[in-house]
Amino acid sequence: MYMVFVTLDVQEDRLDEFIEGITLNARASLADEPGCLHFDVHRSATEPARFHFYELYRDREAFEIEHRAAPHYAEWRKVVDACVVAGSHVNTYGEPMLLGADAEIAEKP
Amino acid sequence: MYMVFVTLDVQEDRLDEFIEGITLNARASLADEPGCLHFDVHRSATEPARFHFYELYRDREAFEIEHRAAPHYAEWRKVVDACVVAGSHVNTYGEPMLLGADAEIAEKP
Repeated sequence: MYMVFVTLDVQEDRLDEFIEGITLNARASLADEPGCLHFDVHRSATEPARFHFYELYRDREAFEIEHRAAPHYAEWRKVVDACVVAGSHVNTYGEPMLLGADAEIAEKP
Repeated sequence: MYMVFVTLDVQEDRLDEFIEGITLNARASLADEPGCLHFDVHRSATEPARFHFYELYRDREAFEIEHRAAPHYAEWRKVVDACVVAGSHVNTYGEPMLLGADAEIAEKP
């Protein structure tokens, strides 16, 4: 499995357009991509125009190839180009060691 | 709801101790804290001694007060002091706008 945590800042006069765009992208990724397993969207608790996404994919290929080839991804890139502050977009990549559900099952009766 | 995304680097000769400690902390947080809703642990895909945690709490108080008052948290702090590279620990805070499960339910028949 492959984890992507995204951080980016949005231009303040483009917030509504951005929120509409990320909502469509997150929903379509989950609905249309078998390899997209989880997609949460957060607004920063410290910076009002900053957002974070927490995404889980089947593997790296499901993110780098399948996600980026999806039709909704092309639409999403247009939203990024129009709304995101240039240079603010940072991706952090990881591989799960322990997922919440596993831990919960392991401990709870 | 309140999201915490943690990044930290572990001393290379303390990796086993660290992994045991974060496993206990993640499982106990989910099992014993009603306010801890999700706790995933990832190893960085780019830096072998870097780790990330993705945690969801009922609200900010459940993280700042209840989580930090739990007995397992005191044990976890000892592991942090012994294993984590000083100054490498960074917390990122957010509030969910859209959680994966909601999106999936909204889109799938």
